[in-house]
Amino acid sequence: MTPSATPVDSLPSSLVERKRRLVRERIVEAADELFSSQGFDNVSVSDIAARADVGRTTFFRYFGDKTEVVFAKEQAMLEAIALTASGETIGAARTPREAVEQLRPIVLEVCRQAAEDPAAYRRHASLVEQHLDLRARDALKTQQIAHDLAAVLQHRGTAEDVAVLAAEIALACYRTARRRATAESDLVRDTRTAFDQALAFGES
Amino acid sequence: MTPSATPVDSLPSSLVERKRRLVRERIVEAADELFSSQGFDNVSVSDIAARADVGRTTFFRYFGDKTEVVFAKEQAMLEAIALTASGETIGAARTPREAVEQLRPIVLEVCRQAAEDPAAYRRHASLVEQHLDLRARDALKTQQIAHDLAAVLQHRGTAEDVAVLAAEIALACYRTARRRATAESDLVRDTRTAFDQALAFGES
Repeated sequence: MTPSATPVDSLPSSLVERKRRLVRERIVEAADELFSSQGFDNVSVSDIAARADVGRTTFFRYFGDKTEVVFAKEQAMLEAIALTASGETIGAARTPREAVEQLRPIVLEVCRQAAEDPAAYRRHASLVEQHLDLRARDALKTQQIAHDLAAVLQHRGTAEDVAVLAAEIALACYRTARRRATAESDLVRDTRTAFDQALAFGES
Repeated sequence: MTPSATPVDSLPSSLVERKRRLVRERIVEAADELFSSQGFDNVSVSDIAARADVGRTTFFRYFGDKTEVVFAKEQAMLEAIALTASGETIGAARTPREAVEQLRPIVLEVCRQAAEDPAAYRRHASLVEQHLDLRARDALKTQQIAHDLAAVLQHRGTAEDVAVLAAEIALACYRTARRRATAESDLVRDTRTAFDQALAFGES
């Protein structure tokens, strides 16, 4: 059955959206509980689906695999970044510096959201730390941020060349803060500092 | 049997090193051939070990898993970066800018080595592109570059704070070039340009 044939699509789009979000949240919560109590390796997609009271097919409509559930929040952030691009009136950046300055508030907002729930942040960080595959997927998601930031700039009319460099520099500031911050509550402040330092490069 | 009990350890250390390198190369070549002819998913560690004419235990003495063999070259580069730190007389960088300038030749050398064998580079890139897990591990290896670059700076006496930011900016330049370069032969040139642009940030 294709998604377009599901009954949910006869509902108004806001309701469909709401229902999807709830199912997604249920899957994430179920996975979170199971990973905490039984360990990531001992939990299967079927376990998660059963606990969330959905079928495996439904699970795979929301997540590509078990690992993706661990990064549900990161994925939501990436989508939020992509959304930033639509319906706004900020013009093209002419220099890499201007482009980095345009990305700064977006990255700070990502940090704010990441640090919003300190307990969840720490639980996530500790789960990822324990598994090579999760660390690798985390690195890939982080890398994806740069792609999405470049897309925002290009959507505003910034040249690709400038957009790619600025996005990578912005990501470097974020990653610097992630490594420097000893508490998740420092993440926003430390990211702001890293941007200040990166933008001051030519001056020293 | 522990490694220290193997007969190879009774040889002079340069011979031991040489023998190790040859075994390692044989494993990498065997894996390369098998991945090309049968596809990454259809090849097991046992297949690789058999083709390289070594035991599984020997395989695992060199590589943590099947995926690691794909990144043997990256791993060797990381080790080369780490080696850079030892036995040199360059002093501490006082500013992030100076630190990025110190990292520049190291990153350019990494690029030169990566682009040395264009056919191997393309074969590697196309293999990685096809697998989510390989893309993830690639992202992790790339991220590791920043850790190792920061370590080089800290070894020279640079403050951790400065070292971390500079290493992430240097990595951003490398990643920008990897995304901009349409041919592997452009990698060194494009990395140099990205460094120029990043270092000119405060001027524009």
